[in-house]
Amino acid sequence: MEESSLENRSIVGQHALTKRMLSNILKVSQEAKAAKRLNPQLIDATVGMLNRESGQLFSYRTVSESLNRLNDNEMFSYSPANGTAEFRSGVIDWVFGKNKEQITKAFTISVIPTTGGSGAISNAVYNFNDFGQKILLPNHYWTPYENIAEEANLGVETFLMFDEEMHFNRQEFRRQALALAGRQHRLFVILNDPCNNPTGLSLSKDDWKDVIDVLNQIARQDIPVILLHDLAYIDYHSAGFDGARGIFETYLDMDERILTIIAFSGSKTFSLYGFRIGAQVGMSKSKSVMEDFCRVGDYSVRARFSSVSRSGMSVIGSIFTNPDKKAAFQAELLEAREILGKRVQLFFECATKYQLTTLPYSGGFFIGVPTENPNIFEDLVKDGVYVITMPGLIRVAISSVPLTDIDRMVQIIKKNA
Amino acid sequence: MEESSLENRSIVGQHALTKRMLSNILKVSQEAKAAKRLNPQLIDATVGMLNRESGQLFSYRTVSESLNRLNDNEMFSYSPANGTAEFRSGVIDWVFGKNKEQITKAFTISVIPTTGGSGAISNAVYNFNDFGQKILLPNHYWTPYENIAEEANLGVETFLMFDEEMHFNRQEFRRQALALAGRQHRLFVILNDPCNNPTGLSLSKDDWKDVIDVLNQIARQDIPVILLHDLAYIDYHSAGFDGARGIFETYLDMDERILTIIAFSGSKTFSLYGFRIGAQVGMSKSKSVMEDFCRVGDYSVRARFSSVSRSGMSVIGSIFTNPDKKAAFQAELLEAREILGKRVQLFFECATKYQLTTLPYSGGFFIGVPTENPNIFEDLVKDGVYVITMPGLIRVAISSVPLTDIDRMVQIIKKNA
Repeated sequence: MEESSLENRSIVGQHALTKRMLSNILKVSQEAKAAKRLNPQLIDATVGMLNRESGQLFSYRTVSESLNRLNDNEMFSYSPANGTAEFRSGVIDWVFGKNKEQITKAFTISVIPTTGGSGAISNAVYNFNDFGQKILLPNHYWTPYENIAEEANLGVETFLMFDEEMHFNRQEFRRQALALAGRQHRLFVILNDPCNNPTGLSLSKDDWKDVIDVLNQIARQDIPVILLHDLAYIDYHSAGFDGARGIFETYLDMDERILTIIAFSGSKTFSLYGFRIGAQVGMSKSKSVMEDFCRVGDYSVRARFSSVSRSGMSVIGSIFTNPDKKAAFQAELLEAREILGKRVQLFFECATKYQLTTLPYSGGFFIGVPTENPNIFEDLVKDGVYVITMPGLIRVAISSVPLTDIDRMVQIIKKNA
Repeated sequence: MEESSLENRSIVGQHALTKRMLSNILKVSQEAKAAKRLNPQLIDATVGMLNRESGQLFSYRTVSESLNRLNDNEMFSYSPANGTAEFRSGVIDWVFGKNKEQITKAFTISVIPTTGGSGAISNAVYNFNDFGQKILLPNHYWTPYENIAEEANLGVETFLMFDEEMHFNRQEFRRQALALAGRQHRLFVILNDPCNNPTGLSLSKDDWKDVIDVLNQIARQDIPVILLHDLAYIDYHSAGFDGARGIFETYLDMDERILTIIAFSGSKTFSLYGFRIGAQVGMSKSKSVMEDFCRVGDYSVRARFSSVSRSGMSVIGSIFTNPDKKAAFQAELLEAREILGKRVQLFFECATKYQLTTLPYSGGFFIGVPTENPNIFEDLVKDGVYVITMPGLIRVAISSVPLTDIDRMVQIIKKNA
């Protein structure tokens, strides 16, 4: 180490020399917001926050009321190092829903609070890979995954996400997962499901069975397998609360050596975007794998950001543990899904009308539109529409576009895509 | 890389195999709190939060009122990627105080919001070292520095903090800094000053001159030099706001190649402990060093925790930019320092009375007491006192001990130290 470092005369460490943020969704979104302040006619479909038809953020009354009732300790003190018991057990109830009993019987589960879903992903990517390895992603992915990998001194490898019928490409997943695992003796895969960011796809239960079959096959070769399941948008699935959670039945078949880390996002579920509250839900049938998970996970929380939002954790804990609040919050979530549902319906009516090709959508904040126009971002901006562009597609945050703008937006996208 | 990873059959990455949290101040503090709930006679002097004489957290009215007045956007939305302009410029005003003009003339400065002071430290340690190197600390240090280093795949090296007269040991700093820099061709040093955590020491202006002289000497050998200046407790200095900031005059002599990163803590200054809001204030006379600072710093924020507390940033920004609020907050800070000052005075009166040796104290939340008793933690717990122990000393968080408990606490410490 010391020898090679003699060559590094930069103020920056060697592993950080090449880091350069090429696209930052939050920054593009700021630019869109600023532009819209000058010209209210512009359509801002950039960032993953749910807005009301008025353009105001959709905040939950249950959340605001709970926040207003916190005492000084619940508001200002440091969080307990491993989070409050209410938060930890509430997250497990919430994430698994009707499958909770089966899942908690089959797996050892541990919840580690993190700074949002991003903190959960970042800590997991850092801890469960060797420097220089690659993580596996579908070719359409939320671009920060790549930044999180580079930050952790890792690369990414992708598999083709869709087959010819625009279903999840099970064959390509299998092929690439086996190849990468064989090559580097580790498989760390991130699946953003249901309501995929950026495409809107949800894997079917049969897709999930197939995914787990592949993971099992690799784990049985004594190769470490880590599944990072990012379900940030699960509560905006058009199939509703229970419908979105059916996929967990397929978890039961998992080989005991596999470590699954579910990234839970308080930002999305509770509109607590700016609070930075989320969790890693670690689960495995192996107790020793879970000991490792807790050991390095707790360490990273302390050594990367010390502790997480106390007020966010207090609010979520109080909603999770108070049945009346929980019911009131569920009712508000229905309202949120309805708002989203109306926009989605109109979007697809317009897409049919104007013959715009889209990717399959089943819920969440985003609709994916394939494009081969390399200047799509600039072309759309010229016509007054801001979206996030990714290789081969544009991501339309339908969560923030009011009904009155949708017909016009679809026409503009059709013109440029 | 891939070859060596073939040997790693653990679910955990190689660089994380040995991470194990041996002492966690927040956890010890939770245990102390739980014990005190069962037995209110116990004295909890563990954690760095300021409490009123009643035992309640000292929260600032200006902060609570500002928080209550935030609109949904200021409360719930994502923060702008680089923070709000109010926050960024307010932090510079606040940190440098009367020296601001001189400092901003001499240096290029950039503020990056982080999840508390810890996030600032963690990101800096990770970005500005090569894996396997060592960072330099005094032998009495806040133990999380060591965890932050290990998390970043780094080690620590220490210098003797005190000379025989219990002043800052300039000679030992010089000797060790030069030796380490020569050995690994990089110097990354953390100084926690003023109001050092854990000892209570504040370096004199002459100490700082000497420190900067050493850093200059190393930088002029074309060795990368990074000074991480953690001033979490600056606003609880017994010398007051201006008195605490005199040290920045010595900054002006810094060699242009040096990168200084000030870790600003919203937790301490505003009692926003659980909000996780702080900042890296990066500064250098070299524009190219600052380009590197911004490039990798922004990247790490996005790739480690995505963005930071919007509500915390909104509150601090509104206090910084509203002169009436700022004045009201300054008055409350005086009140806080008075509470602290009375306890400190009584502590030292008792220390004289019971002949307890202490380390020099000039402000902040902690008083250091040297000890050679290896079982000091357990012995004190038996007698009903919880403190944080570190090699060779105990750290007494006078910030959380009411006046009525101090005489008894000093007697118990004297008995066991």
